Amino acid sequence: MQTIQTIIGNLIKPVYAHCDLPCGVYDPAQARIEAESVHKILQKYHEPGELGETDKLRAIIIKEQRADLVKQHLWVLWSDYFKPEHMEKYPELHDLIWRATKQASICKHATDPAEGQKLLELINEVATIFTATKQAA
Amino acid sequence: MQTIQTIIGNLIKPVYAHCDLPCGVYDPAQARIEAESVHKILQKYHEPGELGETDKLRAIIIKEQRADLVKQHLWVLWSDYFKPEHMEKYPELHDLIWRATKQASICKHATDPAEGQKLLELINEVATIFTATKQAA
Amino acid sequence: MQTIQTIIGNLIKPVYAHCDLPCGVYDPAQARIEAESVHKILQKYHEPGELGETDKLRAIIIKEQRADLVKQHLWVLWSDYFKPEHMEKYPELHDLIWRATKQASICKHATDPAEGQKLLELINEVATIFTATKQAA
Amino acid sequence: MQTIQTIIGNLIKPVYAHCDLPCGVYDPAQARIEAESVHKILQKYHEPGELGETDKLRAIIIKEQRADLVKQHLWVLWSDYFKPEHMEKYPELHDLIWRATKQASICKHATDPAEGQKLLELINEVATIFTATKQAA
Amino acid sequence: MQTIQTIIGNLIKPVYAHCDLPCGVYDPAQARIEAESVHKILQKYHEPGELGETDKLRAIIIKEQRADLVKQHLWVLWSDYFKPEHMEKYPELHDLIWRATKQASICKHATDPAEGQKLLELINEVATIFTATKQAA
Amino acid sequence: MQTIQTIIGNLIKPVYAHCDLPCGVYDPAQARIEAESVHKILQKYHEPGELGETDKLRAIIIKEQRADLVKQHLWVLWSDYFKPEHMEKYPELHDLIWRATKQASICKHATDPAEGQKLLELINEVATIFTATKQAA
Repeated sequence: MQTIQTIIGNLIKPVYAHCDLPCGVYDPAQARIEAESVHKILQKYHEPGELGETDKLRAIIIKEQRADLVKQHLWVLWSDYFKPEHMEKYPELHDLIWRATKQASICKHATDPAEGQKLLELINEVATIFTATKQAA
Repeated sequence: MQTIQTIIGNLIKPVYAHCDLPCGVYDPAQARIEAESVHKILQKYHEPGELGETDKLRAIIIKEQRADLVKQHLWVLWSDYFKPEHMEKYPELHDLIWRATKQASICKHATDPAEGQKLLELINEVATIFTATKQAA
Repeated sequence: MQTIQTIIGNLIKPVYAHCDLPCGVYDPAQARIEAESVHKILQKYHEPGELGETDKLRAIIIKEQRADLVKQHLWVLWSDYFKPEHMEKYPELHDLIWRATKQASICKHATDPAEGQKLLELINEVATIFTATKQAA
Repeated sequence: MQTIQTIIGNLIKPVYAHCDLPCGVYDPAQARIEAESVHKILQKYHEPGELGETDKLRAIIIKEQRADLVKQHLWVLWSDYFKPEHMEKYPELHDLIWRATKQASICKHATDPAEGQKLLELINEVATIFTATKQAA
Repeated sequence: MQTIQTIIGNLIKPVYAHCDLPCGVYDPAQARIEAESVHKILQKYHEPGELGETDKLRAIIIKEQRADLVKQHLWVLWSDYFKPEHMEKYPELHDLIWRATKQASICKHATDPAEGQKLLELINEVATIFTATKQAA
Repeated sequence: MQTIQTIIGNLIKPVYAHCDLPCGVYDPAQARIEAESVHKILQKYHEPGELGETDKLRAIIIKEQRADLVKQHLWVLWSDYFKPEHMEKYPELHDLIWRATKQASICKHATDPAEGQKLLELINEVATIFTATKQAA
């Protein structure tokens, strides 16, 4: 009788078609929701009387975390969702996602809501391509 | 001249109206996307030839993480988004979200896709109330 | 001979009695210890000469993290430890834990040690019910 | 008038007495609770009929995480709570905590509940010294 | 006299030259060390008698985590270290890093050490370009 | 035929020689890279005109995280890499690593770059012993 060790050793077959296990469930909404949070924090930062001193400091802490989550979700779309055929069809995609992650970094030290707006627009462009690839699938 | 220490000490005013800073940007889609992932993993687990041995083990690992994220997003909605007036208007809300988080735990050890389906339905019920409160605001 | 795939597929039986695997080891002390940390930070914040400027900023950062951990531990108690029979016996439990997590959020932007004290008292109420359910088991 | 930049630059005074901000609230209970969880998982692993196949795999995943938390809490006690004077009075303390963290690593691949018991005993020894230093303070 | 609120509001000047604060300290060694760990785990997985059953399962868990860290470190290099002028000089860079992150995903479900070797080679290519950009700076 | 349950139960043999699975791939460079980041942040903090106000606050947040990572990597070396024979040959090792982690804590509230320099020197001492044990192996 084979031990599990042998069974596991023998049966594993590469499944290159789907790189990561949970593929199929990706959604640019995850990046967008966090970016909306970044944008809202930037807006509140400037509204007079909206935030007390401690909350202004907290705004910077939380904006840092939310912008990190934006980057995280964009990276997952880039590395896990998009396939070589998408990159071929949309040659600007690498650069677009790259600039979106850089914009998230800019939002970390920015206090101007316009930077958050720009981040949302870049994520929107990624989402448009995402939807097109979904419909083509 | 006041030192910052004094200034910070003096100016901080409680802002009880908004418990957490980034309030305003909440979305049940965050819980739903992770739950869809849990559901999809449960479905793949049973499709013959879909997953190799290693990937079956990985499916359990990843399902564990995704179900945790479902709970996390539901907890944030519960504690950070919903306010006393919502609880008054929807007295079943505590129990509904509680059962949804318990269903996420059930999905951790379940292998039956029906459990994932049940999780999605409970999140859907939470989302319906969420939308109603948004429209009422 | 069955492959592991078949064996795993066949043998898995739902174990609904214990929702999560590590059930049995829950302790409100985890939430309480983090809340004591929040409380202590709030006290130090006001003691003259206790904290330098950088440490005042760090106090806000660390308080944010500790208050998050309080919420985390309360959520686990709520979703993983407490069972339907507890909710039936203590109908105020949902609301009590909910208010405790909201108080942890208040402590994030508060600088008044009284808010930390209030958090400790709410956790104490949860702990009292927890102990009663343990003794009844 | 000084800008904040200057004020922050000038006012920061080293506070070497307390290395980390939240010092004062340390509790070996944090390591002990996680270790009890590890121990319980090891016990359940062997009780016939207690865990289904998926849950056996999950037990290994969760045990890995809990044992990591044990190490984490022990490291914090070692680096953040204990001071040079404690090390002088308890010269075995470095080695004791070190062996406790190594025992947590052993519990990761062990399936024998005796290893969990040994971990609990080592944490108990750390806790005894901790209590003695508290009473001496 | 200005309040801090005003001072902070006025003095913040965009510093677009360095996107993220800690720029300057990047090192492909971080990705490489985690990739070596992935590679070593894949090798051990096949050495007869090297790993017991529990440790074979743990190998899959730990490999999953290490491969995630590889992706994380590559993403940070991509978004935070590399600048537009680098992308212009090395037009293959987007695709190279992208394929390296995809190879890390392949290593998650692979059990063939050759996949780990391939990951190390891709990271090496990234490191070569990294070093060239450092020397040019 | 044995079920997996029995097989797993029977075959697991303690492998005490290597405490943790991924042993073999440890590198003090991980702690050093994060410490360089801490050091650089401390230097930038004092360069006039280098950081705007928001970035000064962010510097403290990021320094806190990086110093935590330094501690984390040192703890892993201490508990996972170093073996009893190393401690016997280098009896100062416990204390050296301990002081290095305490120096990382000091860097959290320090603004003086000299504290970062001191941290780098302590990590260097750990690395020297690490290299010696590697060559002796």
